[in-house]
Amino acid sequence: MPAIVSRYRSHTCGQLRSSDQGQRVRLSGWVHSYRDHGGLVFIDLRDREGLTQIVFDPDTCGQAVHDEARKLRSEWVISIEGAVGPRGQGLVNPRLATGEIEVHASQLEILSQSPTPPFLPDFEVADADAPKEERRLQYRFLDLRRAEMQQTLRVRHQVTRIMREYLGALGFWEIETPFLTKSTPEGARDFIVPSRLQAGSFYALPQSPQLFKQLLMVGGCDKYMQIVRCFRDEDPRADRQAEFTQLDVEMSFIDRQDIIGHMEGLLVQIWKEVLGIEISTPIPHMDYDQAMNLYGSDRPDLRFGMQLHDITELAHTTDFGVFKNAPMVKCIVVPDGAKMTRAQTDALALWSKEYGAKGLAVTKVSGEGFDTGIAKFINPIAGQIIEMTGAKNGDLLCFAADKPKIVHRVLGELRLKMARDLQLKPSSQFAFVWVVNFPAFEYDEQEKRYSSTHHPFTAPLDEDLKKLDGRDQETIESIRSKAYDIVCNGSEIGGGSIRIHRMDTQQKVFSLLGIDDAAQKLKFGFLLDALQFGAPPHGGIAFGLDRMVMILRNIGNIRDVIAFPKTQSGADIMCGAPSPIDDRQLKEANIRSIMPVIKPPAASE
Amino acid sequence: MPAIVSRYRSHTCGQLRSSDQGQRVRLSGWVHSYRDHGGLVFIDLRDREGLTQIVFDPDTCGQAVHDEARKLRSEWVISIEGAVGPRGQGLVNPRLATGEIEVHASQLEILSQSPTPPFLPDFEVADADAPKEERRLQYRFLDLRRAEMQQTLRVRHQVTRIMREYLGALGFWEIETPFLTKSTPEGARDFIVPSRLQAGSFYALPQSPQLFKQLLMVGGCDKYMQIVRCFRDEDPRADRQAEFTQLDVEMSFIDRQDIIGHMEGLLVQIWKEVLGIEISTPIPHMDYDQAMNLYGSDRPDLRFGMQLHDITELAHTTDFGVFKNAPMVKCIVVPDGAKMTRAQTDALALWSKEYGAKGLAVTKVSGEGFDTGIAKFINPIAGQIIEMTGAKNGDLLCFAADKPKIVHRVLGELRLKMARDLQLKPSSQFAFVWVVNFPAFEYDEQEKRYSSTHHPFTAPLDEDLKKLDGRDQETIESIRSKAYDIVCNGSEIGGGSIRIHRMDTQQKVFSLLGIDDAAQKLKFGFLLDALQFGAPPHGGIAFGLDRMVMILRNIGNIRDVIAFPKTQSGADIMCGAPSPIDDRQLKEANIRSIMPVIKPPAASE
Repeated sequence: MPAIVSRYRSHTCGQLRSSDQGQRVRLSGWVHSYRDHGGLVFIDLRDREGLTQIVFDPDTCGQAVHDEARKLRSEWVISIEGAVGPRGQGLVNPRLATGEIEVHASQLEILSQSPTPPFLPDFEVADADAPKEERRLQYRFLDLRRAEMQQTLRVRHQVTRIMREYLGALGFWEIETPFLTKSTPEGARDFIVPSRLQAGSFYALPQSPQLFKQLLMVGGCDKYMQIVRCFRDEDPRADRQAEFTQLDVEMSFIDRQDIIGHMEGLLVQIWKEVLGIEISTPIPHMDYDQAMNLYGSDRPDLRFGMQLHDITELAHTTDFGVFKNAPMVKCIVVPDGAKMTRAQTDALALWSKEYGAKGLAVTKVSGEGFDTGIAKFINPIAGQIIEMTGAKNGDLLCFAADKPKIVHRVLGELRLKMARDLQLKPSSQFAFVWVVNFPAFEYDEQEKRYSSTHHPFTAPLDEDLKKLDGRDQETIESIRSKAYDIVCNGSEIGGGSIRIHRMDTQQKVFSLLGIDDAAQKLKFGFLLDALQFGAPPHGGIAFGLDRMVMILRNIGNIRDVIAFPKTQSGADIMCGAPSPIDDRQLKEANIRSIMPVIKPPAASE
Repeated sequence: MPAIVSRYRSHTCGQLRSSDQGQRVRLSGWVHSYRDHGGLVFIDLRDREGLTQIVFDPDTCGQAVHDEARKLRSEWVISIEGAVGPRGQGLVNPRLATGEIEVHASQLEILSQSPTPPFLPDFEVADADAPKEERRLQYRFLDLRRAEMQQTLRVRHQVTRIMREYLGALGFWEIETPFLTKSTPEGARDFIVPSRLQAGSFYALPQSPQLFKQLLMVGGCDKYMQIVRCFRDEDPRADRQAEFTQLDVEMSFIDRQDIIGHMEGLLVQIWKEVLGIEISTPIPHMDYDQAMNLYGSDRPDLRFGMQLHDITELAHTTDFGVFKNAPMVKCIVVPDGAKMTRAQTDALALWSKEYGAKGLAVTKVSGEGFDTGIAKFINPIAGQIIEMTGAKNGDLLCFAADKPKIVHRVLGELRLKMARDLQLKPSSQFAFVWVVNFPAFEYDEQEKRYSSTHHPFTAPLDEDLKKLDGRDQETIESIRSKAYDIVCNGSEIGGGSIRIHRMDTQQKVFSLLGIDDAAQKLKFGFLLDALQFGAPPHGGIAFGLDRMVMILRNIGNIRDVIAFPKTQSGADIMCGAPSPIDDRQLKEANIRSIMPVIKPPAASE
């Protein structure tokens, strides 16, 4: 950091080195720690850039300043002036960038005092005695002072800087899209904003700038990017925030491979600058079908193997009813899993029911073949299974037999769980993959209609366009789209698609989704207009910034990568938001608040 | 722009030059204009970067392609392949960057057709036959295609890029602050967002990240910047948008002069890169008192003179009652204004009443002295007035006599009006000034209490701190603050202050503003907590991005510097926002809509 020199400081607390010895300097910051060694007072002075040891020696600073220094306490804000000197023999601290020097203070100015704060910012979140998260959120201004949190904010800034520089150099313009937009109740739930000037009308906060960025392409803007807040009023989930940030990108006159190529370049740049890691390119592509078949997931974690093996045909040759009658039978090999106890494998079977399985068949591979209850049924095919899966003595085989959707979900999750339990996921390794050729539509059994796998503006593959006129389920479900997701270590960090740029195609897709002409006009009339009056081929992508920073910093809690996050129930504990507002504000917004009816407690006595 | 090569293009439409002759190229874009010269079809092909002339000659492209080319119409999107050749003798277009060449097409691909659009994107807003703004907003995707609008978006992108690069190099981190925050009904009106999970509670969209950026400083973040959307639910005004963008800056361990110095550097950089203009620094400072006294405004336009002259003492020596009894009498000299007719000067007097004046005395300066109705009263002091003001033969003197507030308002506005009418404001000149030493508080006669001139977190000047304990109006009103506004050509483009960093001072200011202890705790408890537990000296500034781009592009309408603006009534005409929403959404938000009661029309017959 270039030091900004002011009357408060000539250097930051992370800046001074041996070569600065003899200089007179002024530093400001927080009292990080305090030691009173009889005659000498030692302070570790802290700012964003680091710690510097300050010594108050009455022989140097005089008795009055020394007396003041003895009053200092943790988290007071001070400014000192002094001379840079070497640390004594054996007192050099190699873990500190400024560890070779100390500053012999001659002056001390107390800028702010502080009573003992609720906690000191000297812990890491993983520490056993770290304050509870709720307390950290309440006093976020203290929590932000921690080195770990500062480093995260620094990386977050760095990542957005790289995104802007990289895309800016390629000719992308950052263009702002509105926050007060129209509600489109098809997707996730909108946050709504009552209009004061138009009673009975509401804005919605954007779930993404999707339509606006497409309109920018129709408007000839060619290459757009924006790092932008998006809003989804979803039910609480540990890894979600109601407001989240994405890098939003759209470009014209390109096809899928152009975007994929440029975004790979961006990821390479980010990983190189932030972590010093070279991502090898091209990043492999994997068809959606293949990802589901081999990993039971459309965001496969490729840091480890444990692929799903399809033994349906073999299984149908056995007398085991569960296998014989299942539409699909697959298995995974858990390396070294034979040492699991019966209680542990029973627990696995129970766990699998959370994912819709009726049960989980397991068998241990031993020298004699298979050894559990189901062994007798499947021993006739044991040799073939072992050959097909490469299972070795001491491994555990886990089978799922059900409809494909359930088999993939159960074994996909089991694969992740076993990798977690067996610590097969190295945190320092990054396995990227582009998942492509998604199905464009899925049939919603409950709603009895199709929905878009991504969103209704996603272009089908050129060769599947004619299938849009089909009406049978098999044809519709075989339509693949020009969507692509970028997956890192099993997390989807970005996703996008080539969009539909022709009005007739867009209308066909809307119809297929059950949106009739009148509804199309009402909800998406402006988009159809835009596509009608000369839309270029275009497509784009959005990256989740919060998730990317979590991966780069190896942080599991989304709230730890956001300066002022909300709790799972959407509360800002520090400010006290959301909060009741006064009647005048409600009236101006043309709304009335409806409180849930709560019965008064029955009168006692 | 670095061309991104794809199957759709090898170059942009603004890229080819004489030196590219002979190259085979592929271009894509919109049909900007079409001429069919018998055998040859000429197209101006347009993209964000410019126009390129395309020639379809049946001898080169074959009859089939030529036939296709004859079907092309304005705003169709096409892709062509061809060879770069020189334009014929005398056909070079020096006004076009690509004017020396044309592309002889051999292939043509029609990417999108278009019926005749509502308007063609080939006008400038100032053109007499430009479409009405409402129509432009409804079809914004067409309006955005205009070269003028593209240039504005390009400059807007450029300005934000410079801001980030400049501040990034100084060690500022861009840190995101929340959009779903707590309502603080003291300032302008908040937009509110009902909470689904906490019935009866509401978020507010931020009017600015003021408190969050201060909390970041208390959190040790040292140097923060953010280009951020802010929201104010104000009544409609031509030059305001409900959502607007600001560059928000805050830094620790600095004083007023440090921020002013660094922000000057930023302005220099922006003006240099965008306009090639060197702003001379240091930018002059002007006390608030001086700005009011000389220009009748705290955002003086310094591109021209016409200062206010205080003739109160002289005026009190006359027998003219209006002058004699007024607390203040000032005048301005309108150069060459004597040629105004009686009707014109009467109109001025009428106009002045809009600003609270009881009237406006005017007199023309002629060889014989003054010549209007009031001349006889003021002729005794004519010589002294002429000497004091430097008025010359043929000038017009305009006098206002009233309370200082009204005198300054009327003459300040008159000064701007006369400069407009006389075209004294050169659009290519930029006069910057820092206005400093504002009064910290003003007494609100209606509410019978003090309010902050800027905001309640603004630090008073050090030498005025002790006056916070005063209780008489004169003492309170003499407290000056560490606020500063940067004014360019009479527009406030930025403003900020050093903040209060001590809890006791903040509490005194809250008390002075009539916020009692309980209300302080309820509304600002977290801020007081933060100031209590070790706050560094800090301060910052915010620049209005929309306004800055208006000045840089010499554009008068704020909607013309925003990609998707709202009308004065807050409507997005294109998308149809705000709009009614369905009952399920209202119920989920725990609110009910209140429609204004409209009486049914009385039955006729």
